[in-house]
Amino acid sequence: MKPTVYMEEMDAFTYREKLAKDAVVFIPVGALEQHGSHMAMCVDAALTKAMAGATAEALVADTDGALEGIVAAPINYGYRSQQRSGGGFHLTGTTSLSGTTLIALAKDVVFGLILHGARKIVLMNGHYENYQFIFEGAELALEKARENGIDDVKIQLLSYWDFVDDETIEALYPDGFTGWDLEHAGVMETSLMLLFHPDLVDMDKTGDALYDGLPAELPNYDVLPIVPGYTPPSGCLSSPVESSREKGAILRNVAVKHMVEAVKHEFSGEGDYHEV
Amino acid sequence: MKPTVYMEEMDAFTYREKLAKDAVVFIPVGALEQHGSHMAMCVDAALTKAMAGATAEALVADTDGALEGIVAAPINYGYRSQQRSGGGFHLTGTTSLSGTTLIALAKDVVFGLILHGARKIVLMNGHYENYQFIFEGAELALEKARENGIDDVKIQLLSYWDFVDDETIEALYPDGFTGWDLEHAGVMETSLMLLFHPDLVDMDKTGDALYDGLPAELPNYDVLPIVPGYTPPSGCLSSPVESSREKGAILRNVAVKHMVEAVKHEFSGEGDYHEV
Amino acid sequence: MKPTVYMEEMDAFTYREKLAKDAVVFIPVGALEQHGSHMAMCVDAALTKAMAGATAEALVADTDGALEGIVAAPINYGYRSQQRSGGGFHLTGTTSLSGTTLIALAKDVVFGLILHGARKIVLMNGHYENYQFIFEGAELALEKARENGIDDVKIQLLSYWDFVDDETIEALYPDGFTGWDLEHAGVMETSLMLLFHPDLVDMDKTGDALYDGLPAELPNYDVLPIVPGYTPPSGCLSSPVESSREKGAILRNVAVKHMVEAVKHEFSGEGDYHEV
Amino acid sequence: MKPTVYMEEMDAFTYREKLAKDAVVFIPVGALEQHGSHMAMCVDAALTKAMAGATAEALVADTDGALEGIVAAPINYGYRSQQRSGGGFHLTGTTSLSGTTLIALAKDVVFGLILHGARKIVLMNGHYENYQFIFEGAELALEKARENGIDDVKIQLLSYWDFVDDETIEALYPDGFTGWDLEHAGVMETSLMLLFHPDLVDMDKTGDALYDGLPAELPNYDVLPIVPGYTPPSGCLSSPVESSREKGAILRNVAVKHMVEAVKHEFSGEGDYHEV
Amino acid sequence: MKPTVYMEEMDAFTYREKLAKDAVVFIPVGALEQHGSHMAMCVDAALTKAMAGATAEALVADTDGALEGIVAAPINYGYRSQQRSGGGFHLTGTTSLSGTTLIALAKDVVFGLILHGARKIVLMNGHYENYQFIFEGAELALEKARENGIDDVKIQLLSYWDFVDDETIEALYPDGFTGWDLEHAGVMETSLMLLFHPDLVDMDKTGDALYDGLPAELPNYDVLPIVPGYTPPSGCLSSPVESSREKGAILRNVAVKHMVEAVKHEFSGEGDYHEV
Amino acid sequence: MKPTVYMEEMDAFTYREKLAKDAVVFIPVGALEQHGSHMAMCVDAALTKAMAGATAEALVADTDGALEGIVAAPINYGYRSQQRSGGGFHLTGTTSLSGTTLIALAKDVVFGLILHGARKIVLMNGHYENYQFIFEGAELALEKARENGIDDVKIQLLSYWDFVDDETIEALYPDGFTGWDLEHAGVMETSLMLLFHPDLVDMDKTGDALYDGLPAELPNYDVLPIVPGYTPPSGCLSSPVESSREKGAILRNVAVKHMVEAVKHEFSGEGDYHEV
Repeated sequence: MKPTVYMEEMDAFTYREKLAKDAVVFIPVGALEQHGSHMAMCVDAALTKAMAGATAEALVADTDGALEGIVAAPINYGYRSQQRSGGGFHLTGTTSLSGTTLIALAKDVVFGLILHGARKIVLMNGHYENYQFIFEGAELALEKARENGIDDVKIQLLSYWDFVDDETIEALYPDGFTGWDLEHAGVMETSLMLLFHPDLVDMDKTGDALYDGLPAELPNYDVLPIVPGYTPPSGCLSSPVESSREKGAILRNVAVKHMVEAVKHEFSGEGDYHEV
Repeated sequence: MKPTVYMEEMDAFTYREKLAKDAVVFIPVGALEQHGSHMAMCVDAALTKAMAGATAEALVADTDGALEGIVAAPINYGYRSQQRSGGGFHLTGTTSLSGTTLIALAKDVVFGLILHGARKIVLMNGHYENYQFIFEGAELALEKARENGIDDVKIQLLSYWDFVDDETIEALYPDGFTGWDLEHAGVMETSLMLLFHPDLVDMDKTGDALYDGLPAELPNYDVLPIVPGYTPPSGCLSSPVESSREKGAILRNVAVKHMVEAVKHEFSGEGDYHEV
Repeated sequence: MKPTVYMEEMDAFTYREKLAKDAVVFIPVGALEQHGSHMAMCVDAALTKAMAGATAEALVADTDGALEGIVAAPINYGYRSQQRSGGGFHLTGTTSLSGTTLIALAKDVVFGLILHGARKIVLMNGHYENYQFIFEGAELALEKARENGIDDVKIQLLSYWDFVDDETIEALYPDGFTGWDLEHAGVMETSLMLLFHPDLVDMDKTGDALYDGLPAELPNYDVLPIVPGYTPPSGCLSSPVESSREKGAILRNVAVKHMVEAVKHEFSGEGDYHEV
Repeated sequence: MKPTVYMEEMDAFTYREKLAKDAVVFIPVGALEQHGSHMAMCVDAALTKAMAGATAEALVADTDGALEGIVAAPINYGYRSQQRSGGGFHLTGTTSLSGTTLIALAKDVVFGLILHGARKIVLMNGHYENYQFIFEGAELALEKARENGIDDVKIQLLSYWDFVDDETIEALYPDGFTGWDLEHAGVMETSLMLLFHPDLVDMDKTGDALYDGLPAELPNYDVLPIVPGYTPPSGCLSSPVESSREKGAILRNVAVKHMVEAVKHEFSGEGDYHEV
Repeated sequence: MKPTVYMEEMDAFTYREKLAKDAVVFIPVGALEQHGSHMAMCVDAALTKAMAGATAEALVADTDGALEGIVAAPINYGYRSQQRSGGGFHLTGTTSLSGTTLIALAKDVVFGLILHGARKIVLMNGHYENYQFIFEGAELALEKARENGIDDVKIQLLSYWDFVDDETIEALYPDGFTGWDLEHAGVMETSLMLLFHPDLVDMDKTGDALYDGLPAELPNYDVLPIVPGYTPPSGCLSSPVESSREKGAILRNVAVKHMVEAVKHEFSGEGDYHEV
Repeated sequence: MKPTVYMEEMDAFTYREKLAKDAVVFIPVGALEQHGSHMAMCVDAALTKAMAGATAEALVADTDGALEGIVAAPINYGYRSQQRSGGGFHLTGTTSLSGTTLIALAKDVVFGLILHGARKIVLMNGHYENYQFIFEGAELALEKARENGIDDVKIQLLSYWDFVDDETIEALYPDGFTGWDLEHAGVMETSLMLLFHPDLVDMDKTGDALYDGLPAELPNYDVLPIVPGYTPPSGCLSSPVESSREKGAILRNVAVKHMVEAVKHEFSGEGDYHEV
């Protein structure tokens, strides 16, 4: 078996060696969610897994192996897609977890890793709606760890897009950036898919009338039951037309670079952090 | 007993009459949380209750009573304060609920109202961290309603600060606005407290050295266990110094005006909505 | 801000000082429940908060500050009102929590206080039906405390009416006392409301025909679904006609006096207790 | 197999015949709890099963079979014994369920019976501390039934001792009655055990010094963790010395008679009930 | 009271003495489930209690009291009967628990025993479908024990039929053995009932046409909702015709013998085990 | 995007078309679990996904598209590995879910699919220990469906190895077959991995001394906490030495053939089934 950062493709003995070196374990958290007619439904899970893999590899390279990196199996179902960030959980194909299930799942996976020795954990989120639930899951895992006498665990929680810096945003969105919540199936996700999984994107579809009228104009509140009319017919919240593999590479590079810095900051013991 | 929109101060017979007129029932959701040394810990619960009361009253006035308004007892404990929006749940005084408890609490209160006839419900949030959990609670209540054969309920979920428009933000934050998450115990909350509960604010304290160095510079991720050093010593994330009762009145007026519009939009049956 | 025993009206720094002195923290547990046409629906929450406040203040006075007192934000929703003690949860306005939600809520609030240093906690109940659920919540919080290595917490659980002594009962109920369960919206609660919140009582209403035939005669069992005919039309289980502010003062004075004794007994370390 | 009211001793085909006749199904709810040195620990489960059996048989006899009676398998573990009614759950042998477990257990058993056709259910309680939790379980089962389109179920909840009338109490407790809560392992339970399970009682033990000083004098509140010194050394709260098989027969006869009346009242459709 | 291994029939003081000697506590886990027209519905609970009793007694005898044995009150409701091992939970009379309830129940009972000092626990299963849920409950109890600083507990989980050896199977099933899952209400259970509870068996019924066509031929998968036609009309999965009290005695003797060996192996500290 | 049965690689619009044709949706349920030093840890998830994909494709081919097939995203974490079927959850790398989490996860995924129109669902299990928990999750999803007025769902639950027939077993295991539970990381799993993911197998490792002494001899019971010495040092329960890609192809072909028959049997409406 070839060397890999992916735990799923690693045998247990190799995993044990890495973990014994106090590896940083990344847990990608995605979703199974509609992403228009131009992309497959695995986007959130596939991109987060790929970004976690790239970050883990870059971390090892950047630290000359002082920090090992492992990517656990992704959580591939996510919290109910909300209308203002994912089009809504009423859309067929968007197969969602309830809040307590996602909390429990995140808790169990994090605690399972801790139980066997992981002490440096990064929960990398790739589905906007997940964040609060995996935060809660992480806290519950940490509490359970403490109740079991384990008090040297550190967990970092982040969404990968938060590591795309303002400069890059300006360059990639010359007509103005409408916020990460509206980026559902837009330029960022589509460009990254063109980079990592080009076979799961069909840019031809983005010319359809279905894609007219983007970005979506959504209320500054939620309604339940969901009012279907608020979601654009494609299910995308902003236009993917200007996506490209090159933009994908830029986005990956910038985000990975900053995530490596953040991970090193927290897990190399260099003291308190101030955003730069 | 004097007329009131507050359910807590209403007798049951009066409540039944209002509900029979298909009143909009507002549920304020707050927190018991440190807000620096210059404000009492009830800020999130007290302000949300006051804003809900003002919105309910304005709604009745604006519609000449066509839409009645009732404010249910507030949910006065909230989700774990997070470092990037509330300083962190490690701060003594910040007495937090876990995620599943807040979900269950929101579900029970919403369903309890539905069971007795409420069909128009507004969950008004006043603690940044609560939102996803009360969204989930609302969805569970709605599912339970449907399972009980009740399918004509509509729930609107909002955070009151999202109804302060850009124009007002520019006017009130001449030196630039750092986002609602950092507004914890800053100008907005302090000004509104000066308006609604001046006896629970002590502006003299805001001159303390404790308040130096604001706004806080926080990482673009979370860490668990919380790194106390990331939170400013006051527990405030931005400076309250420029707060005033006048700004409080402006904030209230603008937010209430827009909330009334949004509530009318959803509950007067005027069709789909597009943000303006 | 003026000195207060109420945590909601206290800033976090003041709270920390009091807690550092090993303050007794009272948690009032009430309900949002119909109380006839002559009283507002906040009775259980409002009275318990007021009684806890009076007890906390008397405790400080009685011990010359040796025991500090703090009153946490009330739990203002309670367990399903039962027909034999509150008229029934079918009555519109009575907005109830399920058992597991109240258990979780009590657990979280108690543990949240413990986590930040509270070691002397009094759960003061003011809604008959709550007791077993908050007992369970307190036990779960205590177990969690122990699992976190905290083993010096003591929790006292009580219902304030149990501290009205027989002598006072005889004096206030010359025609015979029918038990605390039937006191729902009767002389005790109404008199205390006349004392603490006279603006939320309308004694004129108690002359209505609605109030005829009290006290209620209820079966010595429960039925589910509730049989509405078993509850008197007013929703009160005994007559409030003989209520007065004076009786309210007597009830408060007696109950507070005995609660202070009980709190001192448990939290001043004087050894085992035998009822006197 | 001989005719029986006990479901455990009935084959499924016989059960189906009885259920098809709309039988009243009694669910005894007990506990596994210390009852001093003079009685076995099954008291609460064994007595409730026996009382339910006697009531079911009397119901059939009294109605000439118009109402069939079935006794389901008892719930033989109960809620945490509390100090004021059972001596406390700290006492070795008292093996208790948590609140949410008992709620879930009662819900599942009740709903399981409903699912197969039971429409007339009596939850008979024999452990003081259980009541609120089985009430909640019954309500949840009923809600689930309604959610499944079953809306003709009626559940009666009672504790068998509430059907011992005042006249009998006066006769059996000539020196005064201290309340059912203090009756733990006292005259009522011991006399009924002498009637139903004399081999599980050893009256000689009741002369031990261990039994001195009863009835117990307990505070009018609870403390957690339990203060062991508040419980008498025997674990009994009142003296069993005056117990006898004859008193057991009187107690059974009176309680069964009144329970049959109450069951007939609720399940024969004679309209509203007024206590007599 | 006469000496007994059954905790239900033991007084608390006797129990404490046995537990102080580090007794092995057996918890029988059964079900309330149809077992054809020829047996009562308590089979799984009654047999497991009897087998646990016989094993506890044999253990004491075999070790000359070096290992004491106690049988806790049985868990007398079990997990949903499945079609391939119990005929299905749709069959009237089969009153089942949901998975989370059984997990919680097993956890509470095991932890309750641990809390008071039990360190050697045997969960003896008698209802095929229970196993995974009580395994989970046992693990949760163990985790809670560790979180409470108790780390010397050992729990053994077994199904009593797994201790019938191949030789005995061959002798008792001369026409071939179809597996323990199909043994529902067949020769093993019926023979053991004839041994332990002959009054709850009616062998005459086994000649009915209802019993034709056994053993059942069931798919190698499950279907939900259950397809009633897959279950034989009697509800038995294999024929009980060849059952006898003698076979019951042989089955008991063999299983008890091997269970005593296994219990001794685990609880006498003789090191690792290899199946023989 | 190319045609596929995998939902993750499908866009939402294509999925909706297939679902509208009443497609059978397969949910693979696996685990992240050690499988010796010769295989990656994704075995259970990867094989089940591959087997589900092969079955879905064969189903479409076999029915000429009358039955469409879709494979949902796999559940890639499973229940705690048990010593007798997976070596034990104490083994580092085996990252397990608790029972209630797996129940909730299975429930949410199944109900999520139902909510959007799936009516024919196959839960395909590939981790021995999962079965009971996903059965429970499926039942809960079905109950929720019914409570939402959806009563035409059918769910088939199976483990793919149960469709390898006796003839094949005899041919592939000439030295005798020790049961599917002991097949953990043995010939079946290894051969299938050589077929589907040869890059994740290293047959050279199977000659290590680590692999001596297989198959494992395990007790006929479980112990908690796990006794590590009962598990062979490799973590495999039987020897993979005789594995080959050819055997993998035979296993796949046989199992897929029989699974297609079973799926057709249940979802083509041909009436009751009898095993052949």
